[in-house]
Amino acid sequence: MKTKERIVAAALQLFNEQGEANVTTNHIAAHLGISPGNLYYHFRNKNHIIARIFLQYSEHLRQSFTPLSGSMSSGSASPAMWFHYLDATFYVMWEFRFFYANLNDILQRDPELHQQYLAVQQELTLNLQALLRELNQQQVLIIADAEIAPLTDVLKMLVSFWVSYQSAQSLTPHISQAVLYEGVSRILLLLKPYFHPELGLELSGLMAHYQALSAKPSDPFHK
Amino acid sequence: MKTKERIVAAALQLFNEQGEANVTTNHIAAHLGISPGNLYYHFRNKNHIIARIFLQYSEHLRQSFTPLSGSMSSGSASPAMWFHYLDATFYVMWEFRFFYANLNDILQRDPELHQQYLAVQQELTLNLQALLRELNQQQVLIIADAEIAPLTDVLKMLVSFWVSYQSAQSLTPHISQAVLYEGVSRILLLLKPYFHPELGLELSGLMAHYQALSAKPSDPFHK
Repeated sequence: MKTKERIVAAALQLFNEQGEANVTTNHIAAHLGISPGNLYYHFRNKNHIIARIFLQYSEHLRQSFTPLSGSMSSGSASPAMWFHYLDATFYVMWEFRFFYANLNDILQRDPELHQQYLAVQQELTLNLQALLRELNQQQVLIIADAEIAPLTDVLKMLVSFWVSYQSAQSLTPHISQAVLYEGVSRILLLLKPYFHPELGLELSGLMAHYQALSAKPSDPFHK
Repeated sequence: MKTKERIVAAALQLFNEQGEANVTTNHIAAHLGISPGNLYYHFRNKNHIIARIFLQYSEHLRQSFTPLSGSMSSGSASPAMWFHYLDATFYVMWEFRFFYANLNDILQRDPELHQQYLAVQQELTLNLQALLRELNQQQVLIIADAEIAPLTDVLKMLVSFWVSYQSAQSLTPHISQAVLYEGVSRILLLLKPYFHPELGLELSGLMAHYQALSAKPSDPFHK
């Protein structure tokens, strides 16, 4: 790995483990055993590193939540499809949890990043709406057209602020994988009333899967 | 009004209008035309004032969300009951919006306040669950027992982080009453699938009411 990439990887790890506000560029350099000058050669400040991490975040959202037309041809909106989207949701919450833990602070101090965030959110919103509409057409879900936009909005909000909500709920917050899987379970809870009645068994299986993960103190999927 | 109460009222107004982080005790004193020394005689610092405002917040939650047993005797779970709870939700979001805009920052810098917050949240959770159970027994809503706790959790999260979510969604966030009424509409959206089918018309009326309020740029209810 090149130094620039090592800096980004180390920053992401330290931000997630210690909280972004508690990690300086000096900490990152010390963690990698490089000089602060070497770090500044690649990134002029911490916001610059965060902007680079944000590109990874955007790329993940783009790749994981673009509806794959054709893959859901009649009858193939299977559990595998749900695992794909729900695991991708878990991944983004876990991998970028420092960002969700401090979203408004990070956005407010970097208007350029905020602008990029809004563009990515807009794209994500359209993708999620298209996905729900496709599931609707497949009769996997039964959602009134007028409710697709506000329901998408609530799901986005749930994912974006689940980490913050959990932080408010404890004097010594610790964002574990189990806590994030609980958030994923809530997505299923919100969609449950819209599932086609014939898919009740499939839904129960999905819910049991993510509830089991949210009950575990830790999980081998990510260390 | 006594000076102490005037300080609390002015602080709440300034926090809401300008953001809590942008308002110092000196601003509050200047706004009231009193000396900083006079303010310090009543409150030793800003956190102390916030703690006092928090008591008002707690009192409002306690009074507005305690299920009124008997008031919902068969058939009386009427639109009036929904207006009561939903308007109370709007009120708390609007009246204490500075608190919701900055929840984790405010809680993290005052562990004593955080502890009180957790106690109030715990009480609120039990009240909301009791309320949903009562509506369930009245067959106003049809919710599986196992879903009452997670659904309450999602509703609490929605109210607690709606302001933060909206702030993230704009480069120049402005928390208007319309934005908060949109949050109230989302509560109805989430409860909609659980409404007893015979109450569809009542629900439509409620949704139309709050959607109209969320579409207005301003509303005479509060200035």
